[in-house]
Amino acid sequence: MNIDIGKFVNLSQKIPVAVLGATGAVGQRFVQLLADHPWFEVVALTGSERSVGKTYGETRWVLDGDPPAAARQMTISRSTPNLPAKLVFSALPTHHAKEIEPSFAAAGYAVCSNASAYRQSLGVPLIIPEVNGDHLRLIEGQRSAQGWPGLIVTSPNCTTTGLAMTLKPLDDAFGVRQVIVTTMQAVSGAGYPGVSYLDIDGNVIPYISGEEEKIENESRILLGHIENGERHAADFRVSAQANRVPVFDGHTLSIAASFMRKPTPEEAARVLAEFPGLDLPSAPRHPVLVRSEADRPQPRRDRSAAEGMAVTVGRIRACPILDLRMVSVVHNTLRGAASGSILNAELLVAEGYL
Amino acid sequence: MNIDIGKFVNLSQKIPVAVLGATGAVGQRFVQLLADHPWFEVVALTGSERSVGKTYGETRWVLDGDPPAAARQMTISRSTPNLPAKLVFSALPTHHAKEIEPSFAAAGYAVCSNASAYRQSLGVPLIIPEVNGDHLRLIEGQRSAQGWPGLIVTSPNCTTTGLAMTLKPLDDAFGVRQVIVTTMQAVSGAGYPGVSYLDIDGNVIPYISGEEEKIENESRILLGHIENGERHAADFRVSAQANRVPVFDGHTLSIAASFMRKPTPEEAARVLAEFPGLDLPSAPRHPVLVRSEADRPQPRRDRSAAEGMAVTVGRIRACPILDLRMVSVVHNTLRGAASGSILNAELLVAEGYL
Amino acid sequence: MNIDIGKFVNLSQKIPVAVLGATGAVGQRFVQLLADHPWFEVVALTGSERSVGKTYGETRWVLDGDPPAAARQMTISRSTPNLPAKLVFSALPTHHAKEIEPSFAAAGYAVCSNASAYRQSLGVPLIIPEVNGDHLRLIEGQRSAQGWPGLIVTSPNCTTTGLAMTLKPLDDAFGVRQVIVTTMQAVSGAGYPGVSYLDIDGNVIPYISGEEEKIENESRILLGHIENGERHAADFRVSAQANRVPVFDGHTLSIAASFMRKPTPEEAARVLAEFPGLDLPSAPRHPVLVRSEADRPQPRRDRSAAEGMAVTVGRIRACPILDLRMVSVVHNTLRGAASGSILNAELLVAEGYL
Amino acid sequence: MNIDIGKFVNLSQKIPVAVLGATGAVGQRFVQLLADHPWFEVVALTGSERSVGKTYGETRWVLDGDPPAAARQMTISRSTPNLPAKLVFSALPTHHAKEIEPSFAAAGYAVCSNASAYRQSLGVPLIIPEVNGDHLRLIEGQRSAQGWPGLIVTSPNCTTTGLAMTLKPLDDAFGVRQVIVTTMQAVSGAGYPGVSYLDIDGNVIPYISGEEEKIENESRILLGHIENGERHAADFRVSAQANRVPVFDGHTLSIAASFMRKPTPEEAARVLAEFPGLDLPSAPRHPVLVRSEADRPQPRRDRSAAEGMAVTVGRIRACPILDLRMVSVVHNTLRGAASGSILNAELLVAEGYL
Repeated sequence: MNIDIGKFVNLSQKIPVAVLGATGAVGQRFVQLLADHPWFEVVALTGSERSVGKTYGETRWVLDGDPPAAARQMTISRSTPNLPAKLVFSALPTHHAKEIEPSFAAAGYAVCSNASAYRQSLGVPLIIPEVNGDHLRLIEGQRSAQGWPGLIVTSPNCTTTGLAMTLKPLDDAFGVRQVIVTTMQAVSGAGYPGVSYLDIDGNVIPYISGEEEKIENESRILLGHIENGERHAADFRVSAQANRVPVFDGHTLSIAASFMRKPTPEEAARVLAEFPGLDLPSAPRHPVLVRSEADRPQPRRDRSAAEGMAVTVGRIRACPILDLRMVSVVHNTLRGAASGSILNAELLVAEGYL
Repeated sequence: MNIDIGKFVNLSQKIPVAVLGATGAVGQRFVQLLADHPWFEVVALTGSERSVGKTYGETRWVLDGDPPAAARQMTISRSTPNLPAKLVFSALPTHHAKEIEPSFAAAGYAVCSNASAYRQSLGVPLIIPEVNGDHLRLIEGQRSAQGWPGLIVTSPNCTTTGLAMTLKPLDDAFGVRQVIVTTMQAVSGAGYPGVSYLDIDGNVIPYISGEEEKIENESRILLGHIENGERHAADFRVSAQANRVPVFDGHTLSIAASFMRKPTPEEAARVLAEFPGLDLPSAPRHPVLVRSEADRPQPRRDRSAAEGMAVTVGRIRACPILDLRMVSVVHNTLRGAASGSILNAELLVAEGYL
Repeated sequence: MNIDIGKFVNLSQKIPVAVLGATGAVGQRFVQLLADHPWFEVVALTGSERSVGKTYGETRWVLDGDPPAAARQMTISRSTPNLPAKLVFSALPTHHAKEIEPSFAAAGYAVCSNASAYRQSLGVPLIIPEVNGDHLRLIEGQRSAQGWPGLIVTSPNCTTTGLAMTLKPLDDAFGVRQVIVTTMQAVSGAGYPGVSYLDIDGNVIPYISGEEEKIENESRILLGHIENGERHAADFRVSAQANRVPVFDGHTLSIAASFMRKPTPEEAARVLAEFPGLDLPSAPRHPVLVRSEADRPQPRRDRSAAEGMAVTVGRIRACPILDLRMVSVVHNTLRGAASGSILNAELLVAEGYL
Repeated sequence: MNIDIGKFVNLSQKIPVAVLGATGAVGQRFVQLLADHPWFEVVALTGSERSVGKTYGETRWVLDGDPPAAARQMTISRSTPNLPAKLVFSALPTHHAKEIEPSFAAAGYAVCSNASAYRQSLGVPLIIPEVNGDHLRLIEGQRSAQGWPGLIVTSPNCTTTGLAMTLKPLDDAFGVRQVIVTTMQAVSGAGYPGVSYLDIDGNVIPYISGEEEKIENESRILLGHIENGERHAADFRVSAQANRVPVFDGHTLSIAASFMRKPTPEEAARVLAEFPGLDLPSAPRHPVLVRSEADRPQPRRDRSAAEGMAVTVGRIRACPILDLRMVSVVHNTLRGAASGSILNAELLVAEGYL
């Protein structure tokens, strides 16, 4: 899927976009990341009733640093489909997303959502461009079934993003059969204010509500295929145990996996390193980076590789029980959230859906 | 193995003991824990050349609080076998232990070691009293083979202690076949000064030198059996991936396991909770505590259960791939180090080896 | 003020006490600390509407470890003055305390409060027993002015407790004139859930709402005197700047102070170390500990000195601008909160107010 | 001091520079920061005997991410004055700097040092360009006294940098008299491996060896003046108490100060905000940023302002004892170390010293 951007995108004018739920932690990431985007221009920000009418600069910025200068002067709108945008990024909480996202799709907007509301229903594609960009084909069926002039596309759970990007090249080459994964997840994944310092300081919490089910289900969807306009999940099995650890950003996954054809660690490393990138503004040249040092990847040292868009894999070695063990790190609020949705939007543009 | 202490121990007089390597982090734990021991009385402390001749109070105390008052006035000796003790606790670094521990055994001392030097050789038993106290029978062979009037007994690697205490009751009941374990280990396990704040702050380091091999080997020794005076390792398989996390004390183990006979989570929980304790001063009534809350065990909240001597297990549930998943927490510097060795010494006394 | 406990306290029967607001973080500390108290027996626990009727064991325990066994079976009551207790410890949030505490005093209960609601009004004494136990004399006026058969006594703000205990012996000996203090306060001081990990991780927040005013006002009340039944604040000046730091428990105070008569550092250290303790169950023998190491006190290493009841002072030296600089550490949830209120209650008993 | 770069700098060719001590934490920062510098090009890296002859990529990179691609292939040289550079940045440990820096100056190199070896001797200017760039005039005397064709210029202690940049505009406007400062310093200030996690986790260490003296002395040098080629320290008084806190990067200073003419907080804020920047590549437009939020500045949120080159000041208010209280944050490894030295080098170039 090598995309020639020149074919699709007229760079003479940026596409007007809005961020729904712009005052939460993920919404702020969208605003931060879109500040200098080559294709998109933020023209509207929405928030809850409490913040409607305020300028964005008056709301509490929870990320480090300051909000982009341009955004600071914008007035926060309601999340109703009368925004001067063609494309909206949804950072809405799930229960709001459930109601609001379809209203935008019905009104003709392209919705790139980071919420979990429609990851598995309404014919909504769940997309990581390098992994299953071809699932965009579901949009046709979505539009005819829902009667929408617009569309909804979702990005997966942050942890699953790291897992699916690690598994995809291996699945293509060797056929994934079984995956036992233990995660060590960053606190930022729980949003703001999220986790109390008193709970997580110097501690591990061996449970994240709903996370294990998302990992087990969404990874099989992402590696599934489309046949006759229907999505078929891949049929490998996943056993996940999710832990919260005192790390700010960056999820770490300890993986044991078996395959239809057992690869050597070297074969696995090569296949991962050669996984091709896309020609899109936010896409890294190498979606998966392989490190050979004994003590890598580490979330703090590797999460920001390729602007937080690459997954870093290391400690690839034979497993005494399944075929391989390895460790992956993914930036949960960049590739695993806001940047992932922006990349989805770029793919939509490149593929002519806007 | 219900031991009647009264039979063996004359409480009218405490047994004089020494701590070898008393100025390191583990050595300080020994000194702290032995301050009020009902059977043992610290009569000598040894250290490296740099500290010999100083009082213990003059050396740098790295644990929280202060050294016990009695120890503060003691003068630090060389680690040579001329100490007025019958029993010595070894907190020596491995390379020193290699040389010094046999010299004490040869001189008639009982050595309870926390070092890894002789965990797998010289006929030295590797003991967790509740798990394999009967391995003390190896001492007879050790003495005759080495010609020692004394003896060496070792306690296992801290992480392995947590794993073996979790597996033992399950192995007795269901027969362990395969164990895939991912550890999240506390920083105190690396000793002092150990890990730099700049390396581990807000980070996960997915590698601890030698740890995975220890887990894989020692757990099979601990669950093995003695036949004709020979130690036979259990023949299940273990795949371990060890991570350092920013936790002060308390190792967390995420375990997936299969068994000869697949237990339900409820059966497993019952067997764990019913694992019997010993009647020794430092032994907990229940060596394994089972928690049913979704988010337990946690190292900070559970490591100190039963004075740091109980392993806490939770999140016991069916695994989509192997039979069970569960999470264990063990206090790495208490049960997994100093307290574990003291319990070994208590068993030696109770069993009449002193 | 050497109190002969035998004179006042009939130990043949414990005094029945209740904890108001027992489900919050401070309330849980009260329950934990009172579990084995020699004089008091917890007979009732109260909570908000949401928890009334539940057993205490069913509510979420936020401290490490588990709630005391005895408390776990108790049913949570409403905070209304019909409890089978003579003495109540109030861990209520300020706005609830404002309403509820007087209702208990009016109904004849002795209220030992940790809330700030009445620290400066209604003739309520603000007490640190070793510092200004004689302020209990205000109770007489309180009772006649309010018409209460019961009484309210409060303990000060946690940080102020550390400051006042450091200043009192120096004030007695040298006369405090000016105090410039910068605090580094633990996260537990903000209650539970309190501060988000995302806000405080690897960070300093240079502001705590209302804290600086409390430090500046309450420290002058505590070192003030009673004349003709009226409380007169001391007239030194305090400049405080409060910071939150990523420390779990234990507030650190960096102090610069000038005096009526300038002491040498050695004189100051002697006066602090000789500050006398009281003969009460929770009172430390030495309320102030002086350390001479260059790098002490430290909150993690020194907060638990004397069961968290002693303030540790170090780095006492000449200040190039005021007279002295020094650093103090106080355990904010023990001496600075629950244990402090319990000590107040013990003083009430010893002084015959119950 | 508005510098017209065009007058001095021929951008047609970059100036060849070397980093002495390039394998330590500060050295790595230099290499990282110089990778894309518009005026300088790294042509040589030096290290200790252990690393000489290795490629830079083979040495252990302790910062997050990876070393710059260009540096990775460079071979590490000895720190001897035969390098193909005109300018050298010294990140040497103090005792090595003492010997090596003069040897480079004697050989004609311009040495921009971050070490403390010559901050107060040999006529070496101690420079923050916006604060006392005119102290470069000392170089003339330095050269004639030492007989050096080259020169040494130093940058101050990291904490002092934050203090001096805060005080300078206030001193110019109101005349600083007394400064009482309490610091909360990041762990990275201690270098690598530096501080053990076991020492600083959840803790405050109220002492940093030599730091208080540096703050007290260097701040008076920086605000001093040159008269007849001699440097005269300013004569205000400073009382500093230095604390290490569990923060990765970014020093926080809690300041109380008195002045010859007492400013209102608003006057102080205006003077700080209007402090002019220089026209140099690494110089921020506003060297001091003033924040009005109650809870700013914070090291994690503000350290990176203006690429880590601006000092952020907040909580400016009247002090009940001295005239003003305020809080400053400075990025200790950027403005306070490597970036500060690079800015010094830029000033040297702009002023024609190279």
